[in-house]
Amino acid sequence: MHKNETIKSELPLFYCPNMLLGNVIDGDEAFHAIKVLRICVDDKIQITDGIGNAVTAIVTQVSKKAIQYKITEVIEVPKLKYNLHLVVAPTKNMERYENMLEKSTEFGFSMLTPIICHHSERTIVKTDRLNRIMIAVAKQSQKAMFPTINEPIKFKKFMEQTHDITNKYIALCRDCNRISLLEAAQKSPDAIVLIGPEGDFSEEEATLAIQHGYVPISLGNSRLRTETAGIAACHTFYVTNQ
Amino acid sequence: MHKNETIKSELPLFYCPNMLLGNVIDGDEAFHAIKVLRICVDDKIQITDGIGNAVTAIVTQVSKKAIQYKITEVIEVPKLKYNLHLVVAPTKNMERYENMLEKSTEFGFSMLTPIICHHSERTIVKTDRLNRIMIAVAKQSQKAMFPTINEPIKFKKFMEQTHDITNKYIALCRDCNRISLLEAAQKSPDAIVLIGPEGDFSEEEATLAIQHGYVPISLGNSRLRTETAGIAACHTFYVTNQ
Repeated sequence: MHKNETIKSELPLFYCPNMLLGNVIDGDEAFHAIKVLRICVDDKIQITDGIGNAVTAIVTQVSKKAIQYKITEVIEVPKLKYNLHLVVAPTKNMERYENMLEKSTEFGFSMLTPIICHHSERTIVKTDRLNRIMIAVAKQSQKAMFPTINEPIKFKKFMEQTHDITNKYIALCRDCNRISLLEAAQKSPDAIVLIGPEGDFSEEEATLAIQHGYVPISLGNSRLRTETAGIAACHTFYVTNQ
Repeated sequence: MHKNETIKSELPLFYCPNMLLGNVIDGDEAFHAIKVLRICVDDKIQITDGIGNAVTAIVTQVSKKAIQYKITEVIEVPKLKYNLHLVVAPTKNMERYENMLEKSTEFGFSMLTPIICHHSERTIVKTDRLNRIMIAVAKQSQKAMFPTINEPIKFKKFMEQTHDITNKYIALCRDCNRISLLEAAQKSPDAIVLIGPEGDFSEEEATLAIQHGYVPISLGNSRLRTETAGIAACHTFYVTNQ
């Protein structure tokens, strides 16, 4: 089986978590493939499992709700050169949060955790919906490595969970001893970046984060909205790791 | 009259292009101030003319459709350290273009020109609406220097108009001799960056641009949507000029 270099834009790309185990696409993906893209037997398709693998395949059978395929080529997918865990407070207007997720997925990142802070106006996040949005964008931008979206977590609990991890940053709006985001990204391609809600982190949260080893960072001189800060953080790691 | 260092988030900021000439806020801004924010006589406000100046003022009179004010302080506004002209093909879905304008306004940039290309599905752009969106975001992110939004222009005409300008870049998706966007931004804080429509620039357009002195750039390894490319271009200049 020879290897192909990239996911190609001229062939449709489907998401199938069990790609290498089974040979069936079902569920929403199959529905979309059959009803919208009208995939037929003998069509050439691409499949990714969202955890770094992608293949080219030939459709061998199409039923009402499933597509069977035979893998013909393994696609050599370049690995993401950075490992960014975005920890962002949900915005009041979820469209903004979804927009941040879309843009960040296009650039590429590893993990998103919605963090519930003292000033958070929203505490409930539908991660199912975020996952559906992420998968659509990841496929459109031809990714084989999808970010993981975690369930929301409270600030204090997240601090405890990440106590022993290095390269942790917290974006603070207030004037304090901060390094720039670019400097942080240049130090290591692996990092956790915390971004607060519309009302910023509380004084207590900022202090707690510093006690847990988080380094305060500045996202620059402009006053950025939460979702724009998330995009800025992701793009900074993207641009410094090309 | 003493000087104040920054535009403050705790005071409302109004846009008044004739700020330094007259002492009246009228039109939409006055309507918003009177009906929504319920501004009264003796209230302290901030005003910007959108071309780099900002002041603190006291409201001296409120009528049905206008606010009169007396300037009390000049605010020393830091200048934008880069001069980025974004030339971006309108997206089919204008919401995406507006989103790019919003994010770019938050970071800060100088000028936006919608460029009509061979593969452009949209050729009409309501710049009035873009201006209203831009002003709302610029005020929210406490800017005193607003970007200029030009009327749409055809690709060939834009090439002719910019022939003699230096630091011009064109984002090309195809493989060719490209420098990175970061490298371009590090060369000079002043630049024109061209970003094509959903179907990319045509071969003829790419060739014409290179003939006119445009340098091909890559926005990185990810396949980015038009509006995400615009945000990436703006953020790259923002992050390299802090």
